[in-house]
Amino acid sequence: MRATLIYGAGDVRVEHVPDPALHEPTDALVRVLRSCICGSDLWPYGSMEPAEDGRRIGHEFLGVVEETGSEVSGLAPGDVVVAPFVWADNTCDFCREGLHTSCRHGGGWGARGVDGGQGEAVRVPQAQGTLVKLPVGEDSALLPSLLTLSDVFPTGHHAAVSAGTGLGASVTVIGDGAVGLCAVLAARRLGAERILLMGRHTERTGLGRDFGATDVIAERGEEGVSRAREVTSGDGTPVVLECVGTKQALETAFGVVRDGGAVSRVGVPQYLDGPIGPSMFLRNVSLTGGVAPARAYIEELLPDVLDGTVEPGRVFDRTIGLDEVPDGYRAMADRTALKVLVRP
Amino acid sequence: MRATLIYGAGDVRVEHVPDPALHEPTDALVRVLRSCICGSDLWPYGSMEPAEDGRRIGHEFLGVVEETGSEVSGLAPGDVVVAPFVWADNTCDFCREGLHTSCRHGGGWGARGVDGGQGEAVRVPQAQGTLVKLPVGEDSALLPSLLTLSDVFPTGHHAAVSAGTGLGASVTVIGDGAVGLCAVLAARRLGAERILLMGRHTERTGLGRDFGATDVIAERGEEGVSRAREVTSGDGTPVVLECVGTKQALETAFGVVRDGGAVSRVGVPQYLDGPIGPSMFLRNVSLTGGVAPARAYIEELLPDVLDGTVEPGRVFDRTIGLDEVPDGYRAMADRTALKVLVRP
Repeated sequence: MRATLIYGAGDVRVEHVPDPALHEPTDALVRVLRSCICGSDLWPYGSMEPAEDGRRIGHEFLGVVEETGSEVSGLAPGDVVVAPFVWADNTCDFCREGLHTSCRHGGGWGARGVDGGQGEAVRVPQAQGTLVKLPVGEDSALLPSLLTLSDVFPTGHHAAVSAGTGLGASVTVIGDGAVGLCAVLAARRLGAERILLMGRHTERTGLGRDFGATDVIAERGEEGVSRAREVTSGDGTPVVLECVGTKQALETAFGVVRDGGAVSRVGVPQYLDGPIGPSMFLRNVSLTGGVAPARAYIEELLPDVLDGTVEPGRVFDRTIGLDEVPDGYRAMADRTALKVLVRP
Repeated sequence: MRATLIYGAGDVRVEHVPDPALHEPTDALVRVLRSCICGSDLWPYGSMEPAEDGRRIGHEFLGVVEETGSEVSGLAPGDVVVAPFVWADNTCDFCREGLHTSCRHGGGWGARGVDGGQGEAVRVPQAQGTLVKLPVGEDSALLPSLLTLSDVFPTGHHAAVSAGTGLGASVTVIGDGAVGLCAVLAARRLGAERILLMGRHTERTGLGRDFGATDVIAERGEEGVSRAREVTSGDGTPVVLECVGTKQALETAFGVVRDGGAVSRVGVPQYLDGPIGPSMFLRNVSLTGGVAPARAYIEELLPDVLDGTVEPGRVFDRTIGLDEVPDGYRAMADRTALKVLVRP
C-alpha cells in the first residue's frame, strides 16, 4: 500500500510500504477513508533532523474495518469507524478515568512497527478499545466532521473542559488554527457566553465567529493582552484556552487570564521552561490541560456531530489525494490552507 | 509602641515606632495578643538588600479590638479577633469568589503605611471584612491553634483544596515546615487516606505522623521521587502539595505526581521559570494553588479548632517575647525552631 513518511524538515514522501496485517489477536485492519494533516505534524515538518529511514506519520483517520483479530468483539468488517489519535485498551485504570493518553497498553500512531494515519490502511492495535463505530455509510457527507473526532474537536473540548468552562463562562481562545477554532466551538457548546478569539487570519477568525466567538483580537503579544483586558473591564477572562504551543502564546495566556482563573493548553509545548513564578502564584492562576484523551470524549461529542448541531469539519478548507500529501504539508506550513483533508 | 522591622538579610530589629491610630472610618485598632514568624519571612531574612529605612514585618496575628472606625460594624472593643495574612474588604467580586488575596481594596501587612503583625498593636484596614471574631477569652489555651488561622493552616488547606483533595485521596506533601505539616492536617481533615510526607527532620515528620501522614520519605531529589513512586506502585499520587517554594521542590512535585494529577503549590516561588514542558503536558499534569486566601477559609476551619478536632497550634515549638524576635528569626533560619510564637 501507499503511506506517508517523513524524512526530515520539509521532506515528506508518499511511498509503497508493506500491506498491514494482523499481528495480535487484539488488532484490526482498517482501510482509510479520510485522513488529514495536523498542526502538530508541522512541528517535525519544520524541524526534524534528516533521517536515512523515514518514519510513518499521521494520527487522524476514519475508515472501514476490513478484518479483526480473534479477541476483538463489537466490530465487524464493513463497520465505519473513527480512531482517536492515540490507541488505548479503554479498560485500564487510566482509561476508566478518561485519561486514554496514559493507557497502560496504548501508544501512538507512526511509532516503530505501527502504521501512521496518512496512508491507505492501518493496523489498529487494541482495536476494540480504540475504535469507535460510526452509524454512517462510506459516502456520508458528515465524514469531515466525524474525522475531527479523532483529534482537533476533542482537543478543543479537552482545553475547554480542563479549564472548567461552563454555562455563562467568559473564555479567551489563543490561536486561530483548527484546534483554536474547535476550542471556540467546544466552549460555545459547553455554554460559554463570551468568547474572545485571538488570531489575525481574517478568514479563520471569520469561521471562529461562526463557531461562537463574540470578539476577535488581532493584536499579538503585549498589545493583544492589553486589548483583551480592555474589552473585559481590565480583568481578563477566568478561562483561557492556549491552542498554539509556543512560549509567546503561553505568555499571552498568562497575561490575559483573570486572577484565580485557569490557563488550559492543548498545543504541544515548544519550550521546556515557562513563566510560572511569583506573578502566576500571587494571582492564583492555574495551568491545566495537556495532550487530549480524545477517546474519552468521542461518545459525548458524536451525537452533536451526527445531528449537525456542530460542524467542526468546516475547519477543512482543502481536500487532496494521498499522492498530494507533500503539497498539503507545504500549504499548511505556508498557511495557505487551514487544515487539509486527505482522501487516500 | 514596639514593633519589628527588617533592615536587610539577617538584620531584624525591634524598635519603638509611632502608636497606630485610626486613619480611615473602615479601620480598627487591634492590640496584639499573639504573633509569629513565618517561613516566608525567612526569604527576606535570607536575601534582602540592606536598606537605610527598615520595613515593618509580620503578617500573622491575633489580638483584641481596642477601637473601631465609624464604618466598622460587628466588631467592638474587647473582641478577640484573628487577622488573615492579607487584609480585604470581603465584599468585592474577588472576595465573594473566595479570592481575598486579589481583593480590589485589600493589601498586605507591613506595606508602606501599614503596620506589620510582629508588634504590639496594628491598625487594621478594612477591619470589618478582614477580622474574624473568636469566641474565646484573652487567656484561652487555644490561642496558638487559633493564630494558625491567619496563615499556615488555611495555607495548607488551600493547597489541599486547590488540588481537589477529597475522601479517600492519595496525597504527597513536600516539605516538613509548618505549612507542610498543616497541609498534612488539612488533607487528612478532607478525607485523604494515604498521605506521603517528604521531609527529613524527624521531629517534624513525627508531628506529621500525628497530623495524619501515613508514610514519611526522608530522601530528597530524584531519590525521593523514586522512593515515593516505589511506595505507590510506580504511579505516584494524583495530588501533590508543594509546600516549600524552591525549584527543586517543584521538580520533585512533578516527579511524584501521577499522570492526570495536580501539583498544588503554596510556598512563595523562589524561581521565575519552571519545568512545564512536554513531559508535564503529555502526562496531563496540572499546576494549581497560589497565595492562600486565608480569609475565605477561616469560618470553615474555626469550629474544628475550637472543639479540638485539629490542633494546628502544635507547629509552634518555641514561644518568645517581642524583644526576642531577632533570636526567633535566627532559630527558624537555623532550623532549631519549627515555628516561633511571639507574645508581645
